[in-house]
Amino acid sequence: MAQTIPDKFLDLFKKQAFANLGTIMSDGSPQVTPVWVDYDGKYVRFNSAVGRVKDKNVRRDPRVSLSILDPENPYRYLAIRGRVVEITQQGAEEHIDSLSQKYLGKAYPYRQPGEVRVIYKVEPEKVSPRG
Amino acid sequence: MAQTIPDKFLDLFKKQAFANLGTIMSDGSPQVTPVWVDYDGKYVRFNSAVGRVKDKNVRRDPRVSLSILDPENPYRYLAIRGRVVEITQQGAEEHIDSLSQKYLGKAYPYRQPGEVRVIYKVEPEKVSPRG
Repeated sequence: MAQTIPDKFLDLFKKQAFANLGTIMSDGSPQVTPVWVDYDGKYVRFNSAVGRVKDKNVRRDPRVSLSILDPENPYRYLAIRGRVVEITQQGAEEHIDSLSQKYLGKAYPYRQPGEVRVIYKVEPEKVSPRG
Repeated sequence: MAQTIPDKFLDLFKKQAFANLGTIMSDGSPQVTPVWVDYDGKYVRFNSAVGRVKDKNVRRDPRVSLSILDPENPYRYLAIRGRVVEITQQGAEEHIDSLSQKYLGKAYPYRQPGEVRVIYKVEPEKVSPRG
């Protein structure tokens, strides 16, 4: 049931457009936080660190939702529902630098001592483009 | 356990800042959609119509999460978790026009035949200002 992102919305992944990531807390309630994202042609990817709330949430329940608004026109957006199908530390340091280049124009400047970076790969199951 | 929004973040409710609203689907998975919001000093309010997905979701499970990014600086944002404590049609037509004035500069132009507008009042339980 994997879906791809329509070509005409791929520009959202080139822009500095934040994704608002919805995950499920341990009590079943929703959490929404802004994240940096990219798209590798198959998976929408975000990056976090071991032990963060969203890390714990998606390890417990991989179902997520993403809302990505065009920063130049918020009435144009992508709503994506899917699940995290892969969680890996492999390449995660390079990945956070790549995301940081896109969003900040430089290597990731916020590393914390002892932090273990992780890539989360989301397989889109329902893609709703608007606008 | 109701919390108020810190004074220095109230400007987010004056700007055309979208809230990304997280709700829970019937299968327990998250849904995130952008909504217009305002704040009456106690409740964060959004407006939808009877029968929409988010309407059904919050009637089933009132727990919600909101991520509101400053359109001028996305690293400044409010994350709010709370619950919908009131759902009312009273004043909902005026309310959608008021929101539309803020976000579009005119009365709400998208009314559908037969649509029943509703105000949802969210009591913030956890407010996390960032930036």
